[in-house]
Amino acid sequence: MAKLQLALDGQIDEGLAILKLVHQYIDIIEVGTPLILREGVRAIQAIQKVYPELEILADFKIMDAGYEEARIAFSAGATMVTVLGVAHDSTIESAVQAAKENEAKIVIDMMRVPSPIERTPTLLEMGCDIICFHTAFDVQGQYNPLPELISSIQSAIPDFSLAIAGGIKPDRVHEVLALHPDILVVGGGITRADNPMQAAKALKEALE
Amino acid sequence: MAKLQLALDGQIDEGLAILKLVHQYIDIIEVGTPLILREGVRAIQAIQKVYPELEILADFKIMDAGYEEARIAFSAGATMVTVLGVAHDSTIESAVQAAKENEAKIVIDMMRVPSPIERTPTLLEMGCDIICFHTAFDVQGQYNPLPELISSIQSAIPDFSLAIAGGIKPDRVHEVLALHPDILVVGGGITRADNPMQAAKALKEALE
Repeated sequence: MAKLQLALDGQIDEGLAILKLVHQYIDIIEVGTPLILREGVRAIQAIQKVYPELEILADFKIMDAGYEEARIAFSAGATMVTVLGVAHDSTIESAVQAAKENEAKIVIDMMRVPSPIERTPTLLEMGCDIICFHTAFDVQGQYNPLPELISSIQSAIPDFSLAIAGGIKPDRVHEVLALHPDILVVGGGITRADNPMQAAKALKEALE
Repeated sequence: MAKLQLALDGQIDEGLAILKLVHQYIDIIEVGTPLILREGVRAIQAIQKVYPELEILADFKIMDAGYEEARIAFSAGATMVTVLGVAHDSTIESAVQAAKENEAKIVIDMMRVPSPIERTPTLLEMGCDIICFHTAFDVQGQYNPLPELISSIQSAIPDFSLAIAGGIKPDRVHEVLALHPDILVVGGGITRADNPMQAAKALKEALE
């Protein structure tokens, strides 16, 4: 059964209001990059205080200073942090080190990785926990080569934890579920739905 | 005459204390990524309030949602924001759009760009203002191919605004100045110097 990750990118008050409606359908709360940029780790702390039983992912998209930046996320209460797959190996390894010291997880954002098929096994060997294929917001609506790419990586590497993110709407979730993700990341598909609770419930049921 | 950019990565109180000592030698205050992750844009606002006459760079390392994230920086008082050179062109173009609307500047962090010689002219055509060659913190101390790379790009593209960042210490600044940067980015070389004011003064004099 795939986990449902809700990405919150707006203001913290909006995020908390949405969570009040949908938290019972959510496994992982993502504190999105724009929210982090606005509020810093206070956004993580505010959410962790209300939902201590849920996993919290800090979408830091770490590119450098892996150890220090991952620790900032974990110290604030995040249980997962994102690191860019295009970062130096030494950045990824030091973020993994911080995750191990904090019993937390590293999620790799594969955005713009030149050769994901070559990079994925290296990332798993370095100790990364989850590989996230992410359609950038800025290219949503363009042709999306991700499904074919993910299938070909799954043929080569049968067993790894897969997250899929970017532009996923409830009415097209079955296309994404055909790829058997471990985590499905949804943002606007819930937060900008006419009825966020209904959208979250429908997604959660589709994942079961 | 190159500008001196001071990168502040620690806590906001430490940053403000350092600025009190060195601000007269600084042209651009960089609110570093770890500081942004800790404090969000409050860090930019706090510095802008005390030093409204200085340029402020938000080291967001934007990878997606270029327009929205750049606007978060500029709305808080930053006059420059960093975007990763590895980001999608559409992310860079939308960040440039936000910069134009706010009379602000886009600085491209070239970290991990696969072919900087091919990428630099494209970035300049898209309207990016400054190209920053950045030795990642996590690989400082390893062999650094940047000087040769920068020289070869300068041979191909004679006229662009160049920033150099990463591990620059006052005693080796002349090696970096030989590349004629427009902006020199120094962090620990000032903030962790025995005498930060003396270090900043020496750097500023070397740049004149």
